[in-house]
Amino acid sequence: MKPIAEIFSQGEEIVTGQITDTNATWLSDKLVELGFRVSRHTAVGDDLDDLIHLLTEIAERADCCICSGGLGPTIDDLTAEAVAKAFSLPLKMDNTALHQIQQYFASRQRVMVSSNQKQALLPEGSVRLDNQWGTAPGFSLLFRRCRFYFVPGVPYEMKQMFEHYIHQELLSHFRLNPEKRVIIRTIGAGESDIQQQLNNIQLPDFVSLGFRTTAEEIEVKLTFQTRLDEAQRQEIIKQVTTPLGELVYAVDEDKQRTTLVDVIEQKMHKKAWTLSVVETITQGMIAVKCSGRNWLQHAEYNAQTAKPLSPDNALQFAQSFIDTLSSQYSTDCCMVQFCLHSKHQQGSSIITVIKTPEGIFHQQKQLMGSLSQQQNRAAMAALNLLRLSI
Amino acid sequence: MKPIAEIFSQGEEIVTGQITDTNATWLSDKLVELGFRVSRHTAVGDDLDDLIHLLTEIAERADCCICSGGLGPTIDDLTAEAVAKAFSLPLKMDNTALHQIQQYFASRQRVMVSSNQKQALLPEGSVRLDNQWGTAPGFSLLFRRCRFYFVPGVPYEMKQMFEHYIHQELLSHFRLNPEKRVIIRTIGAGESDIQQQLNNIQLPDFVSLGFRTTAEEIEVKLTFQTRLDEAQRQEIIKQVTTPLGELVYAVDEDKQRTTLVDVIEQKMHKKAWTLSVVETITQGMIAVKCSGRNWLQHAEYNAQTAKPLSPDNALQFAQSFIDTLSSQYSTDCCMVQFCLHSKHQQGSSIITVIKTPEGIFHQQKQLMGSLSQQQNRAAMAALNLLRLSI
Repeated sequence: MKPIAEIFSQGEEIVTGQITDTNATWLSDKLVELGFRVSRHTAVGDDLDDLIHLLTEIAERADCCICSGGLGPTIDDLTAEAVAKAFSLPLKMDNTALHQIQQYFASRQRVMVSSNQKQALLPEGSVRLDNQWGTAPGFSLLFRRCRFYFVPGVPYEMKQMFEHYIHQELLSHFRLNPEKRVIIRTIGAGESDIQQQLNNIQLPDFVSLGFRTTAEEIEVKLTFQTRLDEAQRQEIIKQVTTPLGELVYAVDEDKQRTTLVDVIEQKMHKKAWTLSVVETITQGMIAVKCSGRNWLQHAEYNAQTAKPLSPDNALQFAQSFIDTLSSQYSTDCCMVQFCLHSKHQQGSSIITVIKTPEGIFHQQKQLMGSLSQQQNRAAMAALNLLRLSI
Repeated sequence: MKPIAEIFSQGEEIVTGQITDTNATWLSDKLVELGFRVSRHTAVGDDLDDLIHLLTEIAERADCCICSGGLGPTIDDLTAEAVAKAFSLPLKMDNTALHQIQQYFASRQRVMVSSNQKQALLPEGSVRLDNQWGTAPGFSLLFRRCRFYFVPGVPYEMKQMFEHYIHQELLSHFRLNPEKRVIIRTIGAGESDIQQQLNNIQLPDFVSLGFRTTAEEIEVKLTFQTRLDEAQRQEIIKQVTTPLGELVYAVDEDKQRTTLVDVIEQKMHKKAWTLSVVETITQGMIAVKCSGRNWLQHAEYNAQTAKPLSPDNALQFAQSFIDTLSSQYSTDCCMVQFCLHSKHQQGSSIITVIKTPEGIFHQQKQLMGSLSQQQNRAAMAALNLLRLSI
């Protein structure tokens, strides 16, 4: 059984929607990688009762909790006071912490105001976590079943304190078995189609299957709870990738993050090919997605070309257009995308044509959603056809 | 007393740190604006017991809860099942919802697989919330003191459903005293510069001043806790906009969301001007930001043009280049942006030149950050110069 961790963020600016709680994302990723099961994120504002209740609940529920925020000098920084009340541990001045705070201000030739003294008040029996990156020290303590770590909410300070102290502490206090994750990246079908295609595969109990839809792709996630040798792991991955065929464009392990354009880049570099593109509905978005890639030699958008074509002769038109394009720009590959007059009130119909030294490839597609969603889907469809054509 | 709202997000990808819960931020901002006190955000993963416990807790604690995620077709989408168990409301097939899902697939010429049927199972006694923007309908119900709204986790669908149904529902079910907010949108200076310029203004106690930095702009937010007549409000707004001068490109009230390109659009339409653009570092991003605007007639990127120029004669070169461009494309305005060879290891230096029927305008700028940040800043700088030149 994995130990259970929770993330607790304190700050009125989070619960009122002024800032997004990216600390929770970062910390969760670290804890999952270490082998915790992260069961909850909670954020509360600057309300002492809310804080006390939450701390008391977590102490009963989790084995570990990382709490960020509320350690600043102002009156709405209430974390230490809430800890003192929730766990009946009176606040005491930590003279080392006070000295560190004084040093922090002295070294920056800034005046330390009296409110900063409050930051050196720590709950009795807690262990101070030095903060070399800001003013407020953190602290840790065990209450009921839960080991709590309190750190500042400033992302940079929080991350430094996690990397320098907390990471090592967790490894020494918990029996952890870090998990192995594999992400199978697909494009060209919806989440329910993908799930349907995987309905009949039988995975061992220690492998779990998950799905995630983003604007760019559908991820199929395999999580291995048990260490396997490489051949066994590859066998299980193959069970999932085989039914999905060419929908799969990458299989990522650990911290890899392969994009569709990375895959295109590998293929273009291998063949030493270059590309020119005429965009219509995407109006620059194909070029943006290829940003920084030197095989993209030319991309253009023109309001005249972007006008919808009649569906009847669109393919012939696109093919003759691409001949003009390839004689105009001396690139190995050319890609054009046209919009078609559509009977549908909402959405667009597009045709993408790609010419490479090996042939002409085309695809027609119906797009729905807002203009920006249609643009994104049209750009992804064009790039996916490019991947399959080269 | 303000009614208490909570935000509940469901998804293993949130608690494991694969994605950041931006739905919570967006929803909180909307609820605070409506007049709720948002007291908590909670995120849990795909664990039925965790979901049931959380729903039961919130039903005792909050007056309103917006829950996003977990309504998809796959086995790890558990929200409806958790609601059924937590509140003892058996799931029933909603035939209207089923029909809508069938229509969704039919209109896209896609096959509806059996797992999508599950999305039409709603807890008995709940009220269906139609989803015209995706497959999964939402639902609402009152349990104990809390009015729950369940919506999909896909941000676009969630936002549409909030704006189209939930917003109005909340106004009819709760006695709310919405805050009045005014957003002063600025571009061209950093947050600390803006704060510095507003240091000496004196605002009444019932008006608070806030700042928010996004990739596109710095927002200066005025929150009015008291209702004022229009003249008094305009007087206060003027106190803030005057010191900021032409950094301010829009003043938005209520649901307005004026973008920099909206302001350019107004000016271009008024003069009936058209534009052609040559992009370099931005590689399509200027065109994308102008997407759907018919005054953008032509945009192109070429790897040769994108190579850095010597800073010595860059301006002359850009001016002669823009003459060629304006004779080639018969648009009223032309814009080019070039990168300059830079002594700085990190970052880029760019020069933007705009030719209008009224003259030639140019600006040089140093950019820092990742490639995509530099591209975005270069595109925003180009568009801001366009705003000031027309």
